Amino acid sequence: MTDESRALNFNPGPAALPLAVLERAREELVDFAGTGMSIMEHSHRGATYEAVHNQAISLLRELLGIPEHFDVLFLHGGASQQFAQVPLNLLAPGSSADYVVTGSWGEKAVSEAEAVALMTEARVRVSATTAVTAEGDGKSATYSRVPRREEIQHDPLAAYVHVTSNETIHGIQFPAALPDLGGTPVVCDMSSDFLSRKIDISRFGMIYAGAQKNVGPSGVTVVVARKDLVKSARSDIPTIFQYRTFAENNSLYNTPPTFSIYLMKCVLEWVRDSGGLEQIQRWNAEKASLVYGASDRHADFYRCPVERDSRSQMNVVFRLPSEADEKRFLAEAERRGMIGLKGHRSTGGVRVSLYNAIPVEWASALADLMEDFVRDA
Amino acid sequence: MTDESRALNFNPGPAALPLAVLERAREELVDFAGTGMSIMEHSHRGATYEAVHNQAISLLRELLGIPEHFDVLFLHGGASQQFAQVPLNLLAPGSSADYVVTGSWGEKAVSEAEAVALMTEARVRVSATTAVTAEGDGKSATYSRVPRREEIQHDPLAAYVHVTSNETIHGIQFPAALPDLGGTPVVCDMSSDFLSRKIDISRFGMIYAGAQKNVGPSGVTVVVARKDLVKSARSDIPTIFQYRTFAENNSLYNTPPTFSIYLMKCVLEWVRDSGGLEQIQRWNAEKASLVYGASDRHADFYRCPVERDSRSQMNVVFRLPSEADEKRFLAEAERRGMIGLKGHRSTGGVRVSLYNAIPVEWASALADLMEDFVRDA
Repeated sequence: MTDESRALNFNPGPAALPLAVLERAREELVDFAGTGMSIMEHSHRGATYEAVHNQAISLLRELLGIPEHFDVLFLHGGASQQFAQVPLNLLAPGSSADYVVTGSWGEKAVSEAEAVALMTEARVRVSATTAVTAEGDGKSATYSRVPRREEIQHDPLAAYVHVTSNETIHGIQFPAALPDLGGTPVVCDMSSDFLSRKIDISRFGMIYAGAQKNVGPSGVTVVVARKDLVKSARSDIPTIFQYRTFAENNSLYNTPPTFSIYLMKCVLEWVRDSGGLEQIQRWNAEKASLVYGASDRHADFYRCPVERDSRSQMNVVFRLPSEADEKRFLAEAERRGMIGLKGHRSTGGVRVSLYNAIPVEWASALADLMEDFVRDA
Repeated sequence: MTDESRALNFNPGPAALPLAVLERAREELVDFAGTGMSIMEHSHRGATYEAVHNQAISLLRELLGIPEHFDVLFLHGGASQQFAQVPLNLLAPGSSADYVVTGSWGEKAVSEAEAVALMTEARVRVSATTAVTAEGDGKSATYSRVPRREEIQHDPLAAYVHVTSNETIHGIQFPAALPDLGGTPVVCDMSSDFLSRKIDISRFGMIYAGAQKNVGPSGVTVVVARKDLVKSARSDIPTIFQYRTFAENNSLYNTPPTFSIYLMKCVLEWVRDSGGLEQIQRWNAEKASLVYGASDRHADFYRCPVERDSRSQMNVVFRLPSEADEKRFLAEAERRGMIGLKGHRSTGGVRVSLYNAIPVEWASALADLMEDFVRDA
């Protein structure tokens, strides 16, 4: 598994892809399935591409157990576009939406929704936030946990409640079973933990996820949405922004990002052939436990700012005693072939992203580094 | 050049890519530049990807002679999203925009602009159309030419005039020098002839183009926009829809479609190494002349519905005497390894797409087929 020529890539996204998937893509790149053309050169209206497209949809349905009353859509523009597209579709004039904020991505989602609300004469409310405001002007808020159920005072008449299941920058993750919010549809930005663990899709109104963490390369966004929400969404916005348009046209209304979807299909096959979501979930738990384990054994050296119940399995963040230590740690990691470990510029420290394609061996190598480093410090 | 194993791919888009580009992408796919990672696995904030990104921008500037007072942006969502994003940015409340319609894509652009105008309390006006309304309900309009200058009665106070330089479905193309519209900014959907010929960028306010015809695979849209238009565009719409956001962040505000941009960079290098836009333009003229030549020599058999001055070099459309003839023609083409020649379902007939990556030899083989077919008919 630990191929000497491969970088141990802990990038927060775009992230590592399974080597087997890349090798297969290379094999098929110039001539896909004996057609004398790359999959990139196939028409999105042709049978060859459409088979790939439909396989990706049915693999998602199968692996995640997506019920029939949900649409599976492939959109453009990344999760950042969904921050605007969700309220454009679901926030009718005069209505209101609630947002639960547990990190920077949630903040961005609120800010885009506010811009839409202004155009629409609708309202956006932060119904829960775990932000701790930093001292001094212009400093970012810090976050260390998800809210407790009783802290979410949501409006039962809200069009939806928006949550971010995993915050990559702060390393904060909701448990797979999100708080029960009664009948209010939960819209979840699941960009960074989609397909990383089993979830009960039927508890959501809508899920969206940029592909570039766990499901493929950048350039495509998966939307899983309850059909009744898609049907009742606004129809007086531009066609290209309506979820309905993608649902009614099997995400082939305009030219989709065909190569990104092809790669996603290959990743989904890799998940299936690896033993499905159960196996992926086991590996993810094992990887996170290796890294948090090393950190906890030396808790006076590696300080994880996140409360235990809110710790992310996808992005493990910690600080070392000093910035100089952190710098030396990152240099030693690089010497061992590990890249992408530097914390986000707003938080500093170290961030270890452990998405699906990261082999357990890499997490183990990182845990070894943590042990060695504290011993030699 | 005519490799037996390759399909002669005349798809209208996604279209053929240069074989040399595909082979290079295959070579680099698993390990990009000795980094032990695919370019898809690199962070968009890292030096390796950023170099690729910036090369793509400077190659575009160099090949097209883009002046300094224009931004070059890479967006998500395809040209269909630009139909909405252009008016979102440039159509301020109370203002008005003019549209010149020469085919189906122009119709779609108008319809999306109308949806935006409704949200904005602005106005959209069709200032020229060459549509010939078909008899009977629900039938599409037909088009056979671009308007003459005197037919474009545009409002000099319009925020912009929108044109579609090439209509893929109807095979209609404006000459490289668009009509002079005084000081009104011209916004041009150049999706299907961008980078196919030399143009004077400074005569436009803004150009947009989905990559999947002449510049790369699907999944990325190039926008070339005058900086003053970007700066004065609306700032009260969601951040992700503002051109300003992409201009101020070198198109790295959110994760770009990194692999599509990498591929585009490879295509642009291929254009440069082939002799630049001058050589591409010569080849495109030669290919179009081969196909129109065969059609004109047998004008009683191959009927091109487009007026001579409005003929597209990118998409040559023609009808045969009967639908049965067309069916046999397409079957014979397929027997000779040619694919993607069926006309759009709204027009029927044959469509030959001759984008940059189509070798002259393929156009020649198609012209031979046309000669053989009419002789044997």
